[in-house]
Amino acid sequence: MRADGRHNDELREVRITRSYLKHPEGSVLMEMGDTAVICTASLDDKVPPFLKGEGRGWVTAEYSMLPRATSVRNTRESRGRVNARNLEIQRLIGRSLRSVVDLTALGERTIILDCDVIQADGGTRTAAITGSFVALFEAMLNLVGKGVLEKIPLRDYLAAVSVGLVNGMPCLDLSFVEDSEAEVDLNVVMTGSGELVEIQGTAEKGTFNRDQLDQLLDLASLGVEVLVNKQREVMGEAARLFAPLSPGAGDGVQG
Amino acid sequence: MRADGRHNDELREVRITRSYLKHPEGSVLMEMGDTAVICTASLDDKVPPFLKGEGRGWVTAEYSMLPRATSVRNTRESRGRVNARNLEIQRLIGRSLRSVVDLTALGERTIILDCDVIQADGGTRTAAITGSFVALFEAMLNLVGKGVLEKIPLRDYLAAVSVGLVNGMPCLDLSFVEDSEAEVDLNVVMTGSGELVEIQGTAEKGTFNRDQLDQLLDLASLGVEVLVNKQREVMGEAARLFAPLSPGAGDGVQG
Amino acid sequence: MRADGRHNDELREVRITRSYLKHPEGSVLMEMGDTAVICTASLDDKVPPFLKGEGRGWVTAEYSMLPRATSVRNTRESRGRVNARNLEIQRLIGRSLRSVVDLTALGERTIILDCDVIQADGGTRTAAITGSFVALFEAMLNLVGKGVLEKIPLRDYLAAVSVGLVNGMPCLDLSFVEDSEAEVDLNVVMTGSGELVEIQGTAEKGTFNRDQLDQLLDLASLGVEVLVNKQREVMGEAARLFAPLSPGAGDGVQG
Amino acid sequence: MRADGRHNDELREVRITRSYLKHPEGSVLMEMGDTAVICTASLDDKVPPFLKGEGRGWVTAEYSMLPRATSVRNTRESRGRVNARNLEIQRLIGRSLRSVVDLTALGERTIILDCDVIQADGGTRTAAITGSFVALFEAMLNLVGKGVLEKIPLRDYLAAVSVGLVNGMPCLDLSFVEDSEAEVDLNVVMTGSGELVEIQGTAEKGTFNRDQLDQLLDLASLGVEVLVNKQREVMGEAARLFAPLSPGAGDGVQG
Amino acid sequence: MRADGRHNDELREVRITRSYLKHPEGSVLMEMGDTAVICTASLDDKVPPFLKGEGRGWVTAEYSMLPRATSVRNTRESRGRVNARNLEIQRLIGRSLRSVVDLTALGERTIILDCDVIQADGGTRTAAITGSFVALFEAMLNLVGKGVLEKIPLRDYLAAVSVGLVNGMPCLDLSFVEDSEAEVDLNVVMTGSGELVEIQGTAEKGTFNRDQLDQLLDLASLGVEVLVNKQREVMGEAARLFAPLSPGAGDGVQG
Amino acid sequence: MRADGRHNDELREVRITRSYLKHPEGSVLMEMGDTAVICTASLDDKVPPFLKGEGRGWVTAEYSMLPRATSVRNTRESRGRVNARNLEIQRLIGRSLRSVVDLTALGERTIILDCDVIQADGGTRTAAITGSFVALFEAMLNLVGKGVLEKIPLRDYLAAVSVGLVNGMPCLDLSFVEDSEAEVDLNVVMTGSGELVEIQGTAEKGTFNRDQLDQLLDLASLGVEVLVNKQREVMGEAARLFAPLSPGAGDGVQG
Repeated sequence: MRADGRHNDELREVRITRSYLKHPEGSVLMEMGDTAVICTASLDDKVPPFLKGEGRGWVTAEYSMLPRATSVRNTRESRGRVNARNLEIQRLIGRSLRSVVDLTALGERTIILDCDVIQADGGTRTAAITGSFVALFEAMLNLVGKGVLEKIPLRDYLAAVSVGLVNGMPCLDLSFVEDSEAEVDLNVVMTGSGELVEIQGTAEKGTFNRDQLDQLLDLASLGVEVLVNKQREVMGEAARLFAPLSPGAGDGVQG
Repeated sequence: MRADGRHNDELREVRITRSYLKHPEGSVLMEMGDTAVICTASLDDKVPPFLKGEGRGWVTAEYSMLPRATSVRNTRESRGRVNARNLEIQRLIGRSLRSVVDLTALGERTIILDCDVIQADGGTRTAAITGSFVALFEAMLNLVGKGVLEKIPLRDYLAAVSVGLVNGMPCLDLSFVEDSEAEVDLNVVMTGSGELVEIQGTAEKGTFNRDQLDQLLDLASLGVEVLVNKQREVMGEAARLFAPLSPGAGDGVQG
Repeated sequence: MRADGRHNDELREVRITRSYLKHPEGSVLMEMGDTAVICTASLDDKVPPFLKGEGRGWVTAEYSMLPRATSVRNTRESRGRVNARNLEIQRLIGRSLRSVVDLTALGERTIILDCDVIQADGGTRTAAITGSFVALFEAMLNLVGKGVLEKIPLRDYLAAVSVGLVNGMPCLDLSFVEDSEAEVDLNVVMTGSGELVEIQGTAEKGTFNRDQLDQLLDLASLGVEVLVNKQREVMGEAARLFAPLSPGAGDGVQG
Repeated sequence: MRADGRHNDELREVRITRSYLKHPEGSVLMEMGDTAVICTASLDDKVPPFLKGEGRGWVTAEYSMLPRATSVRNTRESRGRVNARNLEIQRLIGRSLRSVVDLTALGERTIILDCDVIQADGGTRTAAITGSFVALFEAMLNLVGKGVLEKIPLRDYLAAVSVGLVNGMPCLDLSFVEDSEAEVDLNVVMTGSGELVEIQGTAEKGTFNRDQLDQLLDLASLGVEVLVNKQREVMGEAARLFAPLSPGAGDGVQG
Repeated sequence: MRADGRHNDELREVRITRSYLKHPEGSVLMEMGDTAVICTASLDDKVPPFLKGEGRGWVTAEYSMLPRATSVRNTRESRGRVNARNLEIQRLIGRSLRSVVDLTALGERTIILDCDVIQADGGTRTAAITGSFVALFEAMLNLVGKGVLEKIPLRDYLAAVSVGLVNGMPCLDLSFVEDSEAEVDLNVVMTGSGELVEIQGTAEKGTFNRDQLDQLLDLASLGVEVLVNKQREVMGEAARLFAPLSPGAGDGVQG
Repeated sequence: MRADGRHNDELREVRITRSYLKHPEGSVLMEMGDTAVICTASLDDKVPPFLKGEGRGWVTAEYSMLPRATSVRNTRESRGRVNARNLEIQRLIGRSLRSVVDLTALGERTIILDCDVIQADGGTRTAAITGSFVALFEAMLNLVGKGVLEKIPLRDYLAAVSVGLVNGMPCLDLSFVEDSEAEVDLNVVMTGSGELVEIQGTAEKGTFNRDQLDQLLDLASLGVEVLVNKQREVMGEAARLFAPLSPGAGDGVQG
């Protein structure tokens, strides 16, 4: 049993609140236990310079924390130093989302996902990915609704979860306390079909072997499946809109 | 009648949610209509260099907006240019709060108010002041609870509201649309006793005279009175803790 | 009587030196007592991006202090941190000047006012506004002289002064020493016709009431009248050039 | 067969030049094919603030590229924007090295690894880790030589390699051309005993499954074994100095 | 004859106004023709970290231009990019002044020279050096006056002038127009005794030979002699205070 | 005799390795004794804004040091403050090279020289100039090879060397130790024909006279002649390509 009473293969309570804010084209309040992230999706009619005239779109992300998302106040980036951790996380979010987007079908436009952590209790980057997927979907639905796009240019669902070895035990969805004690910390991004998109495993306090890696990946698969079901639930009927684009993926996400 | 059906002396719906986040010493979700600001209060055991050894404390503020608090996405400060508007607003928030704090009674410590606008619809700076006052109170209550302070080092309540001339009509609590059209925009910070702390009036589209100023200040007094009652309501019994410090002010806020 | 022997409704000695430098399109050395500010006006044939193609011009300002304008050396902005106070002041200067400029008559061009304080003794921001008005006028006269504009696109005179409560006494045009001791500090920007453009009142050490505000505004009106007369004097015959544009305002400034 | 004629499980030519520069406490020119990285190790008698008084040391890294390490000139960080990729890589290098360092045995001092890529042809981050390990060893040997430390505070060897799926084929040690085409790119950091320290797998163009991950990890193990043998070879007799610290690891690296 | 009617060995009109501002420990308005630089000297009781505990003082300089010192407005450093030219010039000013200061006699304190160009017409860096020498002297006199120092810790006078080849003719004290056309531009810093301290010669449009260099240095000697006489004149009786420190130099400057 | 056994008119061992890196259009490893600088030349098809449409090209330079080029680690510019010394040096390098380039013949393109010091032992700026000349030549040869240019747009050879007064003795090519002790330090840039391009002499510890300057310039001429011969040697047959452009200069460099 874990500190908060969960089993080692149990997620914290997951809440995905759609259309959380009034201005953005897509917006989600993503909560996993005490971790809460506002994910918004913004449309921009331009693409970055390196894509100009290529006939493809772009999806990118920015990630930040409010100063008191954490137990100790962290300095705002604007007034302090560049935050390398934030930059690394937002690169991960953007890369992961792009893996399930049909950028050609999106056309020459950019969707920017802003992930702002208002309360942190471990797993903020994975919560940001899971929530951003739904905000991205809302922004795309918006484009379909306006007749700009015919179909949702998504190939599959996408969700992410953290797993880790805590005192030698493989655990799913680490809280901040568990994460601080973990020997190994692994963030896993997967599609609705159960394919891997990103794995980032770190063992600053020790090392790990292939068997342990396998156990952790099994847990992550379990967790992502639950999260994708949750996404499908809040996305409702509209979610069907993106199935036709990718029959294989569609089977995965709907079966 | 105004665009949203309000009378010219009517506030939008006010909601003050206390203890909104789990980590900060004080935290409030302050809402006025569609404007929503997270105000957190953080304790720091140090004072800024210019106060070292003076036996007094400090209260300061930082103000920012999430990128999609507005209808058009605004660039994060960390990645773009310094935002002069934000700096100006946070100086106003800090100055206003300090006017009702007994800095000597606070002792050599700093309370930092972080005001992060998650949704903007006009009046974000005044909402930030009104909400921050309650978050500041929570952090001070926390210090009293721990026996660090004997009494809440506040002299009076403090709230703020915007007023303006919209198509020639003096209006209370401008929404974003009204603010964009206003000939004159006046932000007023007042104490629970009805004293002025800050007035900032601007007439970029035109000018105003002394009579109009008087009408606007009358409206602002009305609005601040409602807001202070709302603050007293959410602060509950504990609010009495700061009355004894300042009998005059106490009369004002309790009478 | 005040520390320097002035009456409470008395300005310090005012000196406005026109065409102070040889390169700028307009330039003024503005002195009020020991406060000295170089105000230059520069023409730029472009407008900021948000005004492109709108058929209107723009007036903006930058404000800074030489390191030893003050008794303690202040770090240059280029080598230290952003100076929030400077940013706030330059926004005030730009906003104030725009209130009397006919931006459409100015056409798609920008006039930049640079206000550099070479010696500070209180009231630098109000001196910068009063001096910048004359430098702005010189640059516009230059455009009229070259046949680019037919008339000076100004609607009225504009000047500013600080007032405050010093040991309970309302005083006009505070010196640095008075400003440091003042309970209330109010900067007032007014037109030649006596209309209000900006008021910024601050009571960090205490609060103020409506009666005190009225007394301070009376003093400010007095001070601005003297300053506008001084401006008219140095602007000479050419000042008549901008009257026809705005008969109402013209009456005000010439009557 | 691959573009450069290698088998899919074949490394490029590995060259590790020790004591490459005269000033640093440790320095290595690390080459893998056309990729060349200068790795230097610098001693600093302080530790970062968060470790002060903890009785432990620190190992950290900085990573950068010369402007023409690449076929297109890249802007220097000092004159352009922060380079998020560089920050991410240097965090990986520091974290990886710390996993095999006995920080307590190192004592309250910092070793900084500077990794400067002078020529890039894929795999610069993994070459930087493999080369930095040897530079770190040289700096520690230096401390042992001066009698500051009794033993080399290393628990095991450490090396890294990139693997990836290129046109569906798992390949070891990707060149730049292969890396650009790869569906999946995986960087693996392992110890001399064959334990995993970091895995970072990315599939921006597609996804991957567990079987493919296993094949890639098998290749990475092969590659790291060769690299560790190369490290041991250039480290010579002195390498024995760190075996006694960690018998288990020692067996691994010497058997 | 030159464009402004001067002979090739003739300086422009030199004006050195002492005690130009009220706050700084030393301050000079230095004018050479239309070039005008405010030079202030500020005392700081600390020395830079690399001199702590060495028993010696430091003299350093900062150099900047007001935006409209030039015919085209230049962006402020605080809002634009670092200005490499300014940094280079201020290093030259600091280095030059230190060559005649007895840093040990100055004691563990720093004197900072701020050189702010309010109007530029060529030769701003050399004017800054010549003016700063007098401001530095004023600040030292101030220390002697307070009894902090017994004698002025200066070894000799110091002044600077620009010379150049303009259309093949060696000229003294180039105006901006001449400087723009010059094939060779040489800045020379010399002591009152006629010794060289700094020479910086540049031939971006062409090259120069040893004979031409000799002619230019002859002109520079002439110019510096006039400037030093002007300095001695404005420094008055007090200038004698620094002679005893360095008899040799004293002879030079007084003879 | 000097510390390293050289005569006072003797250079350290000079090594110029051409085509040192595979990506740049020109690249040189320039070594003088223990000083080693990588000089690369990059082609850019644009010119800076101030040259657009002028029909001329541009040559510019950037200079930096690896953190451990020196005996004490220096902070990277990207993470610390702007490095004024580096900016000053790169301005010198760019200016010097432009003096021998026929910018009109180069056409509307820019060649950027990146000088990265990997090991410093005095004379890094002069080594950077001497090495950059050869890298610049390689990039131009590349353009001739591709038929973009008909001839090498160089007017003459260019090399640089440092000289100085060390304990009163004029010395050629100062090592770091000598440079630290030198009373006078003079950097001299000259053409193959023996003309002066830049002289930068500094006497922070003392002063110098005209005779000493002459002796130093004699030594510099000697040194530059040897360096130009070395350049001609490594440039080989191809060097003849630039002679025809400038017969006079050609005589100089080939005679």
